[in-house]
Amino acid sequence: MGRIAILGGTGPEGLGLGLRFAMIGEEIVLGSRQAPRAADAARRAQERLRVVNCTTPIHGEENQAAVRGADLVVIATPFAGVRELLPPLAEMLAGLVVLDVVNPLIRVDKQFTIERVPEGSAGEAIQALLPRSAVVSAFKTESAESLNAIERPGAGDIVVCSDHSEARTRIMALAERIPRYRAVDAGPLINARSLEAITALLLNINRRHRTVTSIQILGLQK
Amino acid sequence: MGRIAILGGTGPEGLGLGLRFAMIGEEIVLGSRQAPRAADAARRAQERLRVVNCTTPIHGEENQAAVRGADLVVIATPFAGVRELLPPLAEMLAGLVVLDVVNPLIRVDKQFTIERVPEGSAGEAIQALLPRSAVVSAFKTESAESLNAIERPGAGDIVVCSDHSEARTRIMALAERIPRYRAVDAGPLINARSLEAITALLLNINRRHRTVTSIQILGLQK
Repeated sequence: MGRIAILGGTGPEGLGLGLRFAMIGEEIVLGSRQAPRAADAARRAQERLRVVNCTTPIHGEENQAAVRGADLVVIATPFAGVRELLPPLAEMLAGLVVLDVVNPLIRVDKQFTIERVPEGSAGEAIQALLPRSAVVSAFKTESAESLNAIERPGAGDIVVCSDHSEARTRIMALAERIPRYRAVDAGPLINARSLEAITALLLNINRRHRTVTSIQILGLQK
Repeated sequence: MGRIAILGGTGPEGLGLGLRFAMIGEEIVLGSRQAPRAADAARRAQERLRVVNCTTPIHGEENQAAVRGADLVVIATPFAGVRELLPPLAEMLAGLVVLDVVNPLIRVDKQFTIERVPEGSAGEAIQALLPRSAVVSAFKTESAESLNAIERPGAGDIVVCSDHSEARTRIMALAERIPRYRAVDAGPLINARSLEAITALLLNINRRHRTVTSIQILGLQK
């Protein structure tokens, strides 16, 4: 894949994904608004990877620097930040595949739910902010907990959607290289609405049942 | 359970659910706006049940008559109809458990998605229309195809949510009596938003992969 930059790479979801990608040999740059914070997260990530005998390099950089030279850029920041973060990067991200793992979660009466996004979903909002990039929504339903539990393989399906079919195929191939994950092609990006809603449901089920859940699609041929 | 009335019982989802409930011995009344249509659907349902050696009676009645004497009322009409259908029935449904299986589906560029419901979901809208009933949302993600394929057992999880915990428990017990279904307690009714979104996703996956899918929640203890 080359070099994968993860914006919001110091947060639990971005970091967990970075670890998983590093474990399949991808060079990772964790991006953060503050360079020292990114460097620190990268150092600690490297230590954690050593425990599972992985020596792939993980760097840390300020977001703008992280994106430079990246072949794939992952958006893993809180949704509240993307409308500020992305426009200045749009030019640099033009022509690239952008993996969106953002969930616009809010809490209502102690339950997680999804805020109303004018574009329909975080995925569609990010695509609108990056019109010249190929935005792919995936990994949204994978919890930070299970991504970070790197001594265990993943579980469940990575449902992938995008309006750019080549980019979608590329992310599906990447997901399937991670042990135990199966990628499911869900077609156009509008399906990000459902993926984000599934995350809210799983988080509520997790809290109620004191566990960490994921989803599987039954009835597919392979 | 007693007698189960299914409003919209002549549509594929309501009918499929009626067949499944009949097969576990529940007496079913299929409701429709037109009594003759309901009677006709009931007659044909009875014939289909005979093939699987089920002799539980299925009746057909006009919606208002169907509800009379019912112990459980299922709402299986198109979402577009509920704001007209339910207010005149609210008094009769007071104190009853109401099972909502409605998905407010629309199509955008050939993809299914969920329309914006002011209350947040069809489940919440139905609860608002029936303030004195205990609305439980469940079976939303089970396709009409798989419900109607009565020669095969069900597959996947029936995720159940309601703001009325006793009613939720009752529907979970009902779901688990149907062979192969597992009921998953998702807590409050706000989670209906996610269940409806999952249905849209599954329908899009079904069309893309020419199959019939359902979901399973991985990571639960039982």
